[in-house]
Amino acid sequence: MGNTFGHLFRVTTWGESHGGGVGAVVDGCPPRLPLTEADIQSELDRRRPGQSSIVSPRKEADRVEILSGTFEGLTLGTPICLWVRNVDARPEAYEEMARKFRPSHADYTYQAKYGIRNWQGGGRSSARETVGRVAAGAIARKWLRLSHGVEIVAWVAQVHEITGQVDPEKVTREQVDATPVRCPDLEAARRMIELIEKVRSEGDTVGGIVECCVRGVPPGWGEPVFDRLEADLAKAMLSLPASKGFEIGSGFACVHMTGRQHNDPFRIRDGRVVTTTNHSGGIQGGISNGMPIRFRVAFKPVATIMHEQDTVDVDLQETTLKGRGRHDPCVLPRAVPIVEAMTALVLADHALRHRAQCG
Amino acid sequence: MGNTFGHLFRVTTWGESHGGGVGAVVDGCPPRLPLTEADIQSELDRRRPGQSSIVSPRKEADRVEILSGTFEGLTLGTPICLWVRNVDARPEAYEEMARKFRPSHADYTYQAKYGIRNWQGGGRSSARETVGRVAAGAIARKWLRLSHGVEIVAWVAQVHEITGQVDPEKVTREQVDATPVRCPDLEAARRMIELIEKVRSEGDTVGGIVECCVRGVPPGWGEPVFDRLEADLAKAMLSLPASKGFEIGSGFACVHMTGRQHNDPFRIRDGRVVTTTNHSGGIQGGISNGMPIRFRVAFKPVATIMHEQDTVDVDLQETTLKGRGRHDPCVLPRAVPIVEAMTALVLADHALRHRAQCG
Amino acid sequence: MGNTFGHLFRVTTWGESHGGGVGAVVDGCPPRLPLTEADIQSELDRRRPGQSSIVSPRKEADRVEILSGTFEGLTLGTPICLWVRNVDARPEAYEEMARKFRPSHADYTYQAKYGIRNWQGGGRSSARETVGRVAAGAIARKWLRLSHGVEIVAWVAQVHEITGQVDPEKVTREQVDATPVRCPDLEAARRMIELIEKVRSEGDTVGGIVECCVRGVPPGWGEPVFDRLEADLAKAMLSLPASKGFEIGSGFACVHMTGRQHNDPFRIRDGRVVTTTNHSGGIQGGISNGMPIRFRVAFKPVATIMHEQDTVDVDLQETTLKGRGRHDPCVLPRAVPIVEAMTALVLADHALRHRAQCG
Amino acid sequence: MGNTFGHLFRVTTWGESHGGGVGAVVDGCPPRLPLTEADIQSELDRRRPGQSSIVSPRKEADRVEILSGTFEGLTLGTPICLWVRNVDARPEAYEEMARKFRPSHADYTYQAKYGIRNWQGGGRSSARETVGRVAAGAIARKWLRLSHGVEIVAWVAQVHEITGQVDPEKVTREQVDATPVRCPDLEAARRMIELIEKVRSEGDTVGGIVECCVRGVPPGWGEPVFDRLEADLAKAMLSLPASKGFEIGSGFACVHMTGRQHNDPFRIRDGRVVTTTNHSGGIQGGISNGMPIRFRVAFKPVATIMHEQDTVDVDLQETTLKGRGRHDPCVLPRAVPIVEAMTALVLADHALRHRAQCG
Repeated sequence: MGNTFGHLFRVTTWGESHGGGVGAVVDGCPPRLPLTEADIQSELDRRRPGQSSIVSPRKEADRVEILSGTFEGLTLGTPICLWVRNVDARPEAYEEMARKFRPSHADYTYQAKYGIRNWQGGGRSSARETVGRVAAGAIARKWLRLSHGVEIVAWVAQVHEITGQVDPEKVTREQVDATPVRCPDLEAARRMIELIEKVRSEGDTVGGIVECCVRGVPPGWGEPVFDRLEADLAKAMLSLPASKGFEIGSGFACVHMTGRQHNDPFRIRDGRVVTTTNHSGGIQGGISNGMPIRFRVAFKPVATIMHEQDTVDVDLQETTLKGRGRHDPCVLPRAVPIVEAMTALVLADHALRHRAQCG
Repeated sequence: MGNTFGHLFRVTTWGESHGGGVGAVVDGCPPRLPLTEADIQSELDRRRPGQSSIVSPRKEADRVEILSGTFEGLTLGTPICLWVRNVDARPEAYEEMARKFRPSHADYTYQAKYGIRNWQGGGRSSARETVGRVAAGAIARKWLRLSHGVEIVAWVAQVHEITGQVDPEKVTREQVDATPVRCPDLEAARRMIELIEKVRSEGDTVGGIVECCVRGVPPGWGEPVFDRLEADLAKAMLSLPASKGFEIGSGFACVHMTGRQHNDPFRIRDGRVVTTTNHSGGIQGGISNGMPIRFRVAFKPVATIMHEQDTVDVDLQETTLKGRGRHDPCVLPRAVPIVEAMTALVLADHALRHRAQCG
Repeated sequence: MGNTFGHLFRVTTWGESHGGGVGAVVDGCPPRLPLTEADIQSELDRRRPGQSSIVSPRKEADRVEILSGTFEGLTLGTPICLWVRNVDARPEAYEEMARKFRPSHADYTYQAKYGIRNWQGGGRSSARETVGRVAAGAIARKWLRLSHGVEIVAWVAQVHEITGQVDPEKVTREQVDATPVRCPDLEAARRMIELIEKVRSEGDTVGGIVECCVRGVPPGWGEPVFDRLEADLAKAMLSLPASKGFEIGSGFACVHMTGRQHNDPFRIRDGRVVTTTNHSGGIQGGISNGMPIRFRVAFKPVATIMHEQDTVDVDLQETTLKGRGRHDPCVLPRAVPIVEAMTALVLADHALRHRAQCG
Repeated sequence: MGNTFGHLFRVTTWGESHGGGVGAVVDGCPPRLPLTEADIQSELDRRRPGQSSIVSPRKEADRVEILSGTFEGLTLGTPICLWVRNVDARPEAYEEMARKFRPSHADYTYQAKYGIRNWQGGGRSSARETVGRVAAGAIARKWLRLSHGVEIVAWVAQVHEITGQVDPEKVTREQVDATPVRCPDLEAARRMIELIEKVRSEGDTVGGIVECCVRGVPPGWGEPVFDRLEADLAKAMLSLPASKGFEIGSGFACVHMTGRQHNDPFRIRDGRVVTTTNHSGGIQGGISNGMPIRFRVAFKPVATIMHEQDTVDVDLQETTLKGRGRHDPCVLPRAVPIVEAMTALVLADHALRHRAQCG
């Protein structure tokens, strides 16, 4: 279990980094949505590592195939199966992993849970499974855009101690993609790249924060009490590899404010209800209020480092381990399209749920 | 929808603050668990406002009745329906609410979504619906304790700028409940109470952070990739009224660390696998690793303040509104048992899910 | 688990015959549906035993209370909790049941599954749990009628060897309720009543077949492949106590036909697509086609008989048992409103599912 | 939606007859189950048409590939993706179908529901989607056998008016597969084959009944009230293409019996609880009682016949249509492995559900 996300716009992903491939089945997509491989490939290309000097060089082709669910370029309403073959799989890079548990990875917990694990490349817990999410998210993204004019933009807001200044309600994907580190503040981006390259040369890693802004969501999406819109967003983000925290609107900063400072007054602009501030982050009582939805996700410095670490092996003997193989000094840039994809999946699901109950 | 939580230990809650009552149905509880009203009442009593000078005075009786699901003091395996009558309901306190939307409340969004709302007392979006959660959580809590020796302790870690110093792995519920503000650091608690009473007299509100530590969870709970244990905890916490953020283990602080600093080395202690640090917060790859599970939840300063605010009415006309009625200057102490209850629900569900797939 | 039905129009039932009461929570009902206790009470009254000479005399009051989910006579979109107190509970009537398993009842299997059972009155497996279903079904029924003009009529088609002749597409509820046995063919009804009274005097029971016709369902409801409309109807009916079989359209009789005889040709009538025969029973490829939906459910002669039977006890010793207490010689008349209620729940769920995906 | 089956042993299928292929994702399979393509291929080979003279000749290769979820021949506990390429796809065989609706097929209803349909070969509603079910069912079947000793045997009990005599509790798969028509009564099988060949030459079709017996299920599987074991079996069977009815144990025949005749007395044999008759079909109160589970499924004469029929086209004009292309005079033999596969999926799901709640 645990491999399906959503109720009405439902995604099941499968695959590991060293099997036949990775993929996803999207069930419940509305019919007659124009859809081709190109729509999905563009999102996958944003996710692919090896795009610049700051990420680990890999040659994964990541070509998506739509195996079912469309006809003459339109969705049928039947399940859409997406598949991406694994090309760059080098099992031999991890032989030591058969017996040792890498610290802060999933090796030990998978062994404890299942009594078996695919020690080649990290198996299902590796970031490769996010390929299916991004592919499925591309479909949701397109439907949201065509049916509701929803626009989702995420960017790297912070890497280690370096923060960028960004206007969330104006930032565009083009500005985000202007640099490999995906921070639209070009000066901060320059310093981030410098830091990441330094960290890479040290065989270490750094983390940071991805921020996301969603524009165009109408009031009414969200299902109190348990499936509040921010609750489903939180679950989506904390299901990503390396995620450590989620905050909506003012987030943790709200504890420094009083109610008088934090409340968002209502006003009418152009005949629509708006709030003059947006500490709510676009969601009140678990339901969207029409203002931009704003949230941030913290990602840890990933665990694969090129240093020797204390650990234990499958016989519960203390030992050491030195990292080898794929090493990303900072996964933040790659997390940006994955955060957008999960956001699209959550919103598409809630759009359909709202339509179901309220027409 | 949105009123059911969990897959195998499943809870459906119902009720608003000004209807007949509030309740919950718990489905999937293992059979032959000793259970009486007393087990649940003790948790409900912790939740009830009016326990001290720092919360709004109310006389809610909150007596729980078990309407089904037990026999001769043991659970049957059939659904357990819990009911708490509403006693202290004063609809007249909110007459103005029929026409005006309170800022940063759910009034506007409920109206936008459903086209109708119960304006008396906040309806389903009020904190009263958490009664059902706490009642259901009490059952989960007992089962976890008896079947796995799991212990859940939450406390108030911060109110506005005031933080307490707590040893998470030793703190007990008795220490937490030593003061009405539920911070085990007595000095910080004293200052917190002072602040809250000052804020109350100003008709304002403050927020803060609740921290939680779970001890005794064995390795193996959690369902990658979407139902990671921290993802379900995040959803549970962000489904609580007034919640604004969630972080697991090192949380947002991890962005200030490198991989070398953040990784948790494995060692063997007493024949068991442990980590010498616990930035993972007890969860790796979405699955528990046997170390204490640590997380924090941020709560905003609640929206009901005794000041005049700009707002709009149901005819989309700009107007003002001055808060009246129930006013809690700080909901953090009351959030503690609710955070514990949701934690119990998540863990019980995952315990059963793990048992299903892996025996 | 197993106590929730439906995905979008979702019902959770609870309660046994000898606890506090029985009830249901309906989640996902569209908002602003006019709803009062009277709407539900009328359906419950149809279900109640003791309505005539042919069923066992009981004085159950079965008054429903709406505990949440409505406001000023309209549904809110929030969960609707319905409750019916147990009045006529005579535990002492079943003392012997604490130790012996009644043949063809659920006593043995509940004990085997849960290791505990409420031996008073049959617990959760008794027909009393159907109260919650009928109450919830009343809400679905009303919504279907107001939103889509759907009309559901069921009747007793056969008791033992006696069959009635009925025009399914014209039969009305008034005709069905003209006699206590609920067969609109008055001559057959007379013979059925005669048979049932004879069987009652012999302390025995008989079964039969309930038939149902649904008019007004538009084309398009149903979710291939697993949630075909007839598949969900089959599950709904085989979840009823005493049910033994389900058939749609031509049902088992189709095996006596060839394809040429069985196919339903399409024609146009009044600008609408119709079929000139209806062996499909209104469903093709798992989706409604606009023709009346026709199905039949077989019910066994219930197991409580007033004769001595061979059985075993909780110590796995062979023994005998003679039935006492509540004895219904034929449950078919009471099954009619329950079949209608389950039909309404299935159709409401599918109506919302179709609206979600296809608008 | 509608493309996922099961809660804990969960299957999502995808694919149509004229797309890239068909497949299934199995989620929740217990880890460390020995599994290779051969286990699945043997079940698929039983399903494949063109095995004899009595079914339509086709050359589908139906080679299954396991794309994920196993490692060194054992399941990992992660999702298992199975894929079968479409080889024998001749779109041109159905050109007329772009505009005309075949009677008693899903053409009209899919068009009505989705506003679009893949008219080549019947799309998602064709029997080809059952490939994914059979593949997934093979995994469930193996797990059930190894973990519980459960054995599932189905056979053709009736074709048109011809019935076979079979001892359900002794029949073996070898006896079933002794003839292409899969009726273990060789004399009846001979007459069935004769009939089918005659019907084929007439361009017509016939239906029949598949019967199934499951041995080895322990007491305790099933989740009252809505997920009774027979209810989930009924749903599984009525989700199969061409199914028209389901009956459990005595089924519709029970209406000819009284309670005294129908009840199954309990006795002790070899220290175990048994019933001396089995009208219950192995399920009481929705839960298995340890006796063999017995049920029957009626299949209609399929709709593709080689005669001209009245129908309508996409412009709602009356017209005629003459069937061409693939023509199976009788799908009963092919239904046998599909019925077994669905049975395995239902039972595996319930086995895990029982283990979750009751250990």
